[in-house]
This record gives sequence, structure tokens and C-alpha cells, in this order.
Amino acid sequence: MPPVTVFGTANFANAARVMACLEKVGVEYDVVQVDYMAKEHKGAEHLARNPFGQIPAFQDGDIMLFESRAIAKYVLRKYSKSADIDLLREGNPEEAAMVDMWTEVEAHTYFPAMAPIFYECVVYPAMHGTPTNQKVVEESLEKLRKVLDVYEAHLSRSKYLYLAGDFFSFADLNHFPFTFHVMTTPHASLFDSYPHVKAWWERVMARPSLKKICPDMVIRA
Amino acid sequence: MPPVTVFGTANFANAARVMACLEKVGVEYDVVQVDYMAKEHKGAEHLARNPFGQIPAFQDGDIMLFESRAIAKYVLRKYSKSADIDLLREGNPEEAAMVDMWTEVEAHTYFPAMAPIFYECVVYPAMHGTPTNQKVVEESLEKLRKVLDVYEAHLSRSKYLYLAGDFFSFADLNHFPFTFHVMTTPHASLFDSYPHVKAWWERVMARPSLKKICPDMVIRA
Repeated sequence: MPPVTVFGTANFANAARVMACLEKVGVEYDVVQVDYMAKEHKGAEHLARNPFGQIPAFQDGDIMLFESRAIAKYVLRKYSKSADIDLLREGNPEEAAMVDMWTEVEAHTYFPAMAPIFYECVVYPAMHGTPTNQKVVEESLEKLRKVLDVYEAHLSRSKYLYLAGDFFSFADLNHFPFTFHVMTTPHASLFDSYPHVKAWWERVMARPSLKKICPDMVIRA
Repeated sequence: MPPVTVFGTANFANAARVMACLEKVGVEYDVVQVDYMAKEHKGAEHLARNPFGQIPAFQDGDIMLFESRAIAKYVLRKYSKSADIDLLREGNPEEAAMVDMWTEVEAHTYFPAMAPIFYECVVYPAMHGTPTNQKVVEESLEKLRKVLDVYEAHLSRSKYLYLAGDFFSFADLNHFPFTFHVMTTPHASLFDSYPHVKAWWERVMARPSLKKICPDMVIRA
């Protein structure tokens, strides 16, 4: 019996965030499907796991968690020592601040610009058969360009290999799920205009723990 | 000379979040006004502190930070030991997970329901002289009721004094700035329908470090 369970499959970006951490620390996990189209996420069984009815939820023995970023940090804190990795850098306030800062930028600025592109180009057509709303996509691309301008300047000026420094961290990992999905849309070429961002993304995607879950993340109609 | 500087005054909710942590750990701080109406937050001087042009930014010696939640955690990690408090509980993965979970709920679910009520009832009338859009307020109140249903069930069932357990934590502190502001609107009475939430809020507001900055948080036309 695997020690932990993720409720929600890897094609949900926030479940993939959790799985990326589990792969990173090398913890085996069970995946329980929550059927979104059948609205299982709003059913009593899933609401008992996550009262907001969102995917994923996560179980480790007696503990049941929701909110993917909180689950991810729990996994890293609890299981990183044995894996001899430190993606959070909580022992060093300055490094941890850089990790937190770019993690927050992802949540409040990068993700809101990225997500509509992914939903309009991939999710809505695949799940509901609705055509892409090009106006929404264009507005998001405009926002995303301004965000990527800042990322390009940061990576270029700092000469960092990764967002928080010369170490792969939770900040980079948090950018993985939605960037992966936007890279499957016709707008992936946007990154060509940002050479430092593109090189960073290629470094992120070269990591075996992330590569491993990519095939399961692909959205199919 | 105070050891650290907050760029942005306490009437900005996200600056107040940082100041609440500084008061909690008892670190002296200097406050530099960033004139929002004069668009100083989008000027070169502030963009050098925060490339996204948001308030606050924060300086501690050579380190310059932005994103209020990241700054707040930096302050708590760096200065909590001497103050003998532990709002993050990072030494205990289970407790830290509860703190993170309710911190994330605040950021992604509670805040988005609360903020438009505050902006429409307080900020826009005071800053731009525009009347409150009641439709936006009603929609947000509807969202907020559903969120508070979950909070009420959580606090009632767990019998916790605070969101993450029987200890005041970063999760509670993160709810402070926007709840404080919504409590200054005509919709404060909404909390009367949620007795456990209301009792929790009264416990939060009884804390001296939070009380101290409240007078500076009030928005004036």
C-alpha cells in the first residue's frame, strides 16, 4: 500500500504540482480519480476531503490536506531530508525569501496571465467542445508579455540559473504545471522573444522528476 | 536608524500585513510613503524596488523584497527566535501544513470574495469619488457567504481557537488586513450569522500587535 494518496489525476495542473514534489522526493503515491465531468469534486465524498470542492486533495495517514501549494510544501518538508534535497531553503531566511517571492509572483501574477490561455486553447475545447475565445487569449498574452519582460530582466540582470538563485527551487517547480500546458498551445513561440526565460524553462524541463509526469498531464478530448 | 524599511503605508492592506509581522516580532521599522494617486508605484524609483510596481516593497540591509506574503514570512523567520514566537510552525510538518493550507485559502478564496466589497464600499469612493457598485458587492457577498459557511463548519467541528489549531498563526494573521477593512463597511454584520467565525475574529482582533496598527490602516478620502 503506497504511503500517500493524491485525489485528482495529473491532467489537473494543481494535482501535477503535488505529484512533481512527490516524484522529486521519491515518495510512492496512489492516485484516485475524481471525475470532474461527473461533478464528483462537488460530491459529498470529495467535499469531506476538500470542503471547497477543488482538486486535488491529499492524504498521508491521518492527515487530509487541500490547496496544492500547501500540500506540496508539506511533502517537501516531511520527505526532503531522506532525499537530500532542499527546494524550500527554510534554513536560510534570505534564500527562503527569494523562493517565496517568486512562488508568490507565480500565484498572483504569472498564473493569472497564463491560465486563461491554457483554458481557452486546451481545456474548454477538449472538455466542453467550445471554441477558443480569441479576445480573452489576446488580452492574456498582452498581460503575459509584461510579466515575461520582468522575468527576462530578472534572469538577465541576476545571471541566476533559476528564479531564486543558482539552485532549482520550489519557485521554479511552481511555474511548471501551467507553463507546461501553455507550451502545448499555438502560443508557445511567445517564449522565443525572451531568451533568458526560454533557457530557464529548458533547464526546468530537463529535470527527470518533472519529465516523468508530463505524459500523464496531457489533456485529451 | 531603524533596521528595516517598508515602502508603502499601513492603509495599503498588503503593507499592513508586513507591519503586523514586524509588530509581532518587535522589530522597529521605517515607513516610506509611496504616493499611489501620483502613481509613484509605477515610477522608476519604486520599480527598482518592485518590478511589478506594486505596494509594498521591503528593505533589510542589502536585501530588497516584494510580495507581502513572502516579506511577512521572511520577517517571521529572521526575527521570531528572539521574540520567542512561532507563527509558521515550520519545525512540525503537520502543523505547518495547517498554517499553509489556511494561508492559501485566504489568498485564493477568502481574499477574492472579500476584496471587491472593500474596494467598492471604501477605496473607490474615497480615492476616486465613484459610487459603490451594488451589483459587484452583492455578488461578492454571495461568494463570501459560501466561503464563511466552510470556515464556520471548520471552526465549529474542529473546536480550534484559531484556523490552524489552538495557536495563533500566520494563517490567522493573513486574514487580518482585508477582514479589518470589510468590518468598516455596512456589511460587517454578515459575520453575525457565523458565531464561530465571529468569535475567532474577536480573538484575532484582541492581539496587541494587530490593534496597534489599526488606526493607521483606516482609509480616508
